[in-house]
Amino acid sequence: MSTRHLFKSSDGLVVKSLRGLVAYNSALCLDETNRVIFDTAHDSSQVSLISGGGSGHEPAWSGYVGSNMLAASVSGDIFASPRTKQVLSAIERVPSGKGVIIVVGNYTGDCLHFGLAREMALSNGVECRLIICGDDVSVGTNKGGLVGRRGLAGQIGVLKLMGGASGTGGSLDDVYDLGLALAKQTVSIAATLDHCHVPGRQGEHTTVPDNGIEIGTGPHNEPGYKKLDTMPAAEEVIRQLLAYCLDASDPARSYVRFEPGDETLLLISNFGGMSYLEMGALTDEVLCQLEASYNMVPSRIYSGPIETSLNAPAFSLSLINMTAAAKTCAYSVHQMKEFADVKTDTHWESMAGNQRAHRRSRNQQFINSKQEITQRLPTPLDSLTVDPDLLEKMLRCVCDAVISAEPDLTRWDTAMGDGDCGETVKTGATFLLNALNNNLASSGSIGQVLRTIGDLVESQMGGTLGGILGILFVSLQAAMTNNFTNTKDLASLPLLWGTALAEAVENLGRYTLAKVGDRTVMDTLIPFSQALRGGDFDAAVEAAIQGAEATKRMAPKLGRATYIGGLSNETELPPDPGAWAAMEAIKGLQRGMNVS
Amino acid sequence: MSTRHLFKSSDGLVVKSLRGLVAYNSALCLDETNRVIFDTAHDSSQVSLISGGGSGHEPAWSGYVGSNMLAASVSGDIFASPRTKQVLSAIERVPSGKGVIIVVGNYTGDCLHFGLAREMALSNGVECRLIICGDDVSVGTNKGGLVGRRGLAGQIGVLKLMGGASGTGGSLDDVYDLGLALAKQTVSIAATLDHCHVPGRQGEHTTVPDNGIEIGTGPHNEPGYKKLDTMPAAEEVIRQLLAYCLDASDPARSYVRFEPGDETLLLISNFGGMSYLEMGALTDEVLCQLEASYNMVPSRIYSGPIETSLNAPAFSLSLINMTAAAKTCAYSVHQMKEFADVKTDTHWESMAGNQRAHRRSRNQQFINSKQEITQRLPTPLDSLTVDPDLLEKMLRCVCDAVISAEPDLTRWDTAMGDGDCGETVKTGATFLLNALNNNLASSGSIGQVLRTIGDLVESQMGGTLGGILGILFVSLQAAMTNNFTNTKDLASLPLLWGTALAEAVENLGRYTLAKVGDRTVMDTLIPFSQALRGGDFDAAVEAAIQGAEATKRMAPKLGRATYIGGLSNETELPPDPGAWAAMEAIKGLQRGMNVS
Repeated sequence: MSTRHLFKSSDGLVVKSLRGLVAYNSALCLDETNRVIFDTAHDSSQVSLISGGGSGHEPAWSGYVGSNMLAASVSGDIFASPRTKQVLSAIERVPSGKGVIIVVGNYTGDCLHFGLAREMALSNGVECRLIICGDDVSVGTNKGGLVGRRGLAGQIGVLKLMGGASGTGGSLDDVYDLGLALAKQTVSIAATLDHCHVPGRQGEHTTVPDNGIEIGTGPHNEPGYKKLDTMPAAEEVIRQLLAYCLDASDPARSYVRFEPGDETLLLISNFGGMSYLEMGALTDEVLCQLEASYNMVPSRIYSGPIETSLNAPAFSLSLINMTAAAKTCAYSVHQMKEFADVKTDTHWESMAGNQRAHRRSRNQQFINSKQEITQRLPTPLDSLTVDPDLLEKMLRCVCDAVISAEPDLTRWDTAMGDGDCGETVKTGATFLLNALNNNLASSGSIGQVLRTIGDLVESQMGGTLGGILGILFVSLQAAMTNNFTNTKDLASLPLLWGTALAEAVENLGRYTLAKVGDRTVMDTLIPFSQALRGGDFDAAVEAAIQGAEATKRMAPKLGRATYIGGLSNETELPPDPGAWAAMEAIKGLQRGMNVS
Repeated sequence: MSTRHLFKSSDGLVVKSLRGLVAYNSALCLDETNRVIFDTAHDSSQVSLISGGGSGHEPAWSGYVGSNMLAASVSGDIFASPRTKQVLSAIERVPSGKGVIIVVGNYTGDCLHFGLAREMALSNGVECRLIICGDDVSVGTNKGGLVGRRGLAGQIGVLKLMGGASGTGGSLDDVYDLGLALAKQTVSIAATLDHCHVPGRQGEHTTVPDNGIEIGTGPHNEPGYKKLDTMPAAEEVIRQLLAYCLDASDPARSYVRFEPGDETLLLISNFGGMSYLEMGALTDEVLCQLEASYNMVPSRIYSGPIETSLNAPAFSLSLINMTAAAKTCAYSVHQMKEFADVKTDTHWESMAGNQRAHRRSRNQQFINSKQEITQRLPTPLDSLTVDPDLLEKMLRCVCDAVISAEPDLTRWDTAMGDGDCGETVKTGATFLLNALNNNLASSGSIGQVLRTIGDLVESQMGGTLGGILGILFVSLQAAMTNNFTNTKDLASLPLLWGTALAEAVENLGRYTLAKVGDRTVMDTLIPFSQALRGGDFDAAVEAAIQGAEATKRMAPKLGRATYIGGLSNETELPPDPGAWAAMEAIKGLQRGMNVS
């Protein structure tokens, strides 16, 4: 259980948090004394929806105040019901000609305080009704007894649809009946990987064992109905949760019947400490299992921090049977979906995505791109060819040179970096050898070779060096194309290489700020390209060697080696392995030109 | 550091998570092979914005794909850049007649892979530009050197405004210049309470000391620029963070100048493991300090999980100077705010609140309700009076009775419940005595007495018993009012009490399911009210006594006692303290009637 908080005490935390919320919601107003957030734009010709409960469940309920959802919310202390006077204040803040409906989760304190406020409002002549939502199926019908089902995040789905109905001008009876009908047709269950810690409290909470999970938990660190010391795979956890909600053969738990074709609404609530990455995967798994095991494709899906428990790594699943609810209220399933889809200015939108054009077919949504979608345009360079034998020899010598250098490169990079430089370079060279064995050079096409090498270094080498060399080769290819004018003019080839390489290295500067002296591969590439501009290859090779040697006298400025201190500028270091590898490759080219 | 995950391995997790996202965003499509999310509704007459990076930062960037924001996103492995081919695939998925702009955070892998993709797209004839966002001020200008500033959540603000500009049909030049201008005018800094754990990885990450904090951290568990073993108060942490961003006298860090009156955009990003409660309070504190220390009232405020680091308990602050940015691009500050406000169908909305009618004055937003806002309507009951002396005697006897019972009640409740029943009852009685001392009974008004007792039990007793008795007294008052027809008809008073109490107890059943036999206060109230219906007070008292005595033979079914097992039904238990207290109070009423 993480006990880490920025605010170490809960003193004043709730009001401060509500102030933060109001700061970027200009239609909202905060009654600090009563911790009531209310919508100053609330239309008094619409039913006023009010909800609330203990704090620590944000965005429930303060985050749901706004048009087409709540008119007001009331916040208690962390995990404690607000007081009756706070609720009464909320009722008075959002008067309605149609009446007020209070919706609360089924917790004793909330039922009593909101209930008393309702009675007091009634005795003051305010038309006021109360709906208590209990959706947790974890305690079976036989054990739940008098307490009834506990309130989980299903309530927020009920509120969203009621808010939509209220926003269309629904009558008090119709909105109330809708809420009652939906609340009765909701099943939820939660699972907890660990409890949460309340700021400022000491040692009162239990934790879940390190690899354990509790199923059938509540949003206030309530212990689970079922405790597993060893958590099964995620798929099995979800299977069990869905069975609690949907297994019609479980006499203690089939609170809601789901018939084939019933339109349902799915809510997956992050209790606060699950990563978004996991929540996405959880959503996918729930949908897969609902379809495979229950033939159910929810009509609407909401996933996110719907009702939290501070930052607990836990979540709940809720399903609402809209088709069944439509049988006991004035609204059709079609209308309910409209209520679900109508936009609000509230935090609800973060869970809602965009589902108006809901697609039943999952096939549309997923593409496995088997085909290579990148279409290459033919370039003039495709017509530039050189002696295939020479090309083959030069490239093989490059490969041999860097593969031979691998042990040194690895040793140097292990001392100064993350140790993968040698292997990275060797991998690239090995793939290039394979390509040569598959006749890469047999056409003598410069364009084809550059393209292949560019692909290889990027896709096979990876890492920073792969990225830099990838850009270099693509840029080189582009620069060759731009500067190449005449397929017959092979005499100007050395000059073309010199010009193109200089342009390519210059373009590299858009992606790396490294210059000569920074102890990177650029210490070889920059002097090499500058010397090659004159057209003298041997002089360029010499410049590359000088550049690589010079890295032995440079302190690291970029990359992981930057963070390794304690190296003196005075003594000689190992050379930069990237610079050295490039130099070896260049020497390999030279050797390939000169072997008979 | 919490190592708890529902999905224990990262194998396939990224694609599964993206499938979940697409499931409730019907305009989105997922290229699983390339982990590209793209907007099938993207308008090719608008500039295509593409962003992405390592996974684990959700909702960045997949959650921001949709109209008026990104055309496509590209996801790498957790905390690792996507490959060039993935980016190329994204570019091809969202063609635009105007061109493509790629925006990435300043991380070497992202710069190189997205950069190479840009070069390859260019060489294929696609008009494509790249903006690299680096906003982290933690590494000073003198130390940052060649690497430049690291990318934090400021980028998402840049993307939102660029998306807004693109949505209005902005030209490639204008949208690109806007992005560049905003990126240059952004400062950010992060603070970390603990690192996060990557699913499936073992023991590779360091943790922050238990009460420590690191300032100047990155979103991949990068160590902080400043490590504090003992975290100062939240206010001090925020003061330091803002100083890094805004202190113009720090030569190493004043990357962006903020002049008085400059319009700014504030982003507060939850790295994933902060509770919403704390995030709200953090937002308030940042705004308070910005105004007090820097005379800055941001024009727009965004708070929430903007760019996460899995579920790390950490956050970042970002400020963008829109006024300064407007000087180097084609758009005015007014237009930038329009771009900020335009709605998207993306996860951005969860952070955005509703700020169109932005108010500079904080005064409007906070109310301290000093006055008692509940107005009571006069009721016919106000005219019903009885002998003040008798009323006084009866009420004092009730108080004495329950105060005397307190030690027994406490002992019994300590054994079976949370131990507070005796004190709760005693507190209520003490307040009632005070009210009597202040002439509560002197007018003999039944209405006034019931109203006062109702207020007292709710506001002073609290807890479940206070709630139940509060509802009872409000209901009793309402039932008396409804059934009372003739102020002169005092002869029918016993019958009126009987009828009204029966109705009130029945109404209580809306809020508690407890019936006779459930070992609650209802075991006294129900038999008492049933007997009183006949008008015989003494018989009713006897029924109350029998009811309370019977709780000694009942197993608990409601409340905290429910969870205490091991009590045999055979042996006698202590009575239910609530039932007993009610019986003592009723006996007190009887005694008060009979004393001379």
